[in-house]
Amino acid sequence: MSGRGGPRDGRRRGQPDTKRERRDLGQQVEGRRAVRELLVAGRRRVHDLWLSSDADDASVVAEIVELAEQAGVRIRRVPADQIERRARTGAPQGVVAFAAPVPTADLDELLADPRAFLVALDGVTDPQNLGAVMRSAETAGATGMILPTHRAVGLTPAVAKAAAGALEYLPVAFVSGVPGALDRARRAGVWCAGLDAGGEQSLYGLSVADAALVLVLGAEGRGLSRLARARCDVVASIPMHGHLASLNVSAAAAVACTEIARRRSEG
Amino acid sequence: MSGRGGPRDGRRRGQPDTKRERRDLGQQVEGRRAVRELLVAGRRRVHDLWLSSDADDASVVAEIVELAEQAGVRIRRVPADQIERRARTGAPQGVVAFAAPVPTADLDELLADPRAFLVALDGVTDPQNLGAVMRSAETAGATGMILPTHRAVGLTPAVAKAAAGALEYLPVAFVSGVPGALDRARRAGVWCAGLDAGGEQSLYGLSVADAALVLVLGAEGRGLSRLARARCDVVASIPMHGHLASLNVSAAAAVACTEIARRRSEG
Repeated sequence: MSGRGGPRDGRRRGQPDTKRERRDLGQQVEGRRAVRELLVAGRRRVHDLWLSSDADDASVVAEIVELAEQAGVRIRRVPADQIERRARTGAPQGVVAFAAPVPTADLDELLADPRAFLVALDGVTDPQNLGAVMRSAETAGATGMILPTHRAVGLTPAVAKAAAGALEYLPVAFVSGVPGALDRARRAGVWCAGLDAGGEQSLYGLSVADAALVLVLGAEGRGLSRLARARCDVVASIPMHGHLASLNVSAAAAVACTEIARRRSEG
Repeated sequence: MSGRGGPRDGRRRGQPDTKRERRDLGQQVEGRRAVRELLVAGRRRVHDLWLSSDADDASVVAEIVELAEQAGVRIRRVPADQIERRARTGAPQGVVAFAAPVPTADLDELLADPRAFLVALDGVTDPQNLGAVMRSAETAGATGMILPTHRAVGLTPAVAKAAAGALEYLPVAFVSGVPGALDRARRAGVWCAGLDAGGEQSLYGLSVADAALVLVLGAEGRGLSRLARARCDVVASIPMHGHLASLNVSAAAAVACTEIARRRSEG
């Protein structure tokens, strides 16, 4: 079957941007939790579901089979080594799904929400970290993510797996650069709060309340870039009580997102 | 030099347990941040430091060289591929250190601290998660970790790297089982608080204040075991505001540790 359709397959109607087609937008989903959420959410077409023929009888596997059958998704029982060869993460847990790409969001639409709670990642290159941040943001009720197209990781299988289903629910706007997106946010009246180990104010002193806001996090190790920092209305830090100077970016995101959720649910 | 001393090396005074000697106790440290903290802390002997001969001129590399020279640690400049072959993590970042094992802590001594803030992990098997939890616990001012010896990951190079130096500061008590350790904690008057997505009380309702406490987290996916849960005075959860049912264990640990630190610094 390989080669069927040839190059014409790359230029189908409605997909004019060949660059975008090559980009990872969650088309391959691995891991039980992520595949389960893909099927539960039911927001995009699942073309194919590969299940290891020696998958154990865990309840989540039974649930995946049931959800796939309900949705009319074809299940292929394949040998474990075939799954491993096709997998792009280290531990697909015996299940790989092939789906339509996640629809990308429009930044201006995300910014127009008066209760916007957006998370912008500037330069995070580790797929585990990106996925983990998406999972934490989703559980905190974030209304969207802002990710740069260049010099950053796409929505690869590793991201989808670490996000544990957050890809299905959390709108993602891709932008050419985070600093420019923050300019647009400020023009739209949306407050920009950076998070950085060197931030001048405690996270707990932020007046987030009900304001529309973008939480901005920088790259692993280096933190917020100078350009992103210059666009933030405030740069906050998480108080440190030990010897180490900072948290991992995904831990910091979890703490900040959860704190913003707590303050919003109180406000 | 290999083989010098023969089997007698395995039975030196003060190291009667050969099993323990074979165990990973942070003897191999990879990654710039973790190696930097190993040298800054200076709490254990560093036998050898391998640095890739084509390591870039990042300030942290220069700092590592300076710290090693000050401490009289031999630096070996070796080809990058030799580092890669010797490395046990996927990204040693051009630096591997070989050091004495971290000293393990005594559980009863950790429990005797009236300001004890301990984190117990029951069944966490992912080294990234274990290391990330240690990093978050250290930055929150935790006074120690409780880890099971069996069916759990040791202090491998992957753990040391993700912990980003927390191994050097955070005492670790290894126990044969976490439920038994919680029994000992309760007998010592130390409060046991579980954290689980199904917890009956909000994390924010916990009366942690200044009490000595153990925060208990369960395995990825499955959460707290029945036996550990039965020993907890309370099981708390982090409020969820989206579609997903839970945070990753290391994100949950970061949120809970940081919240406990916040409440303690206020109290």
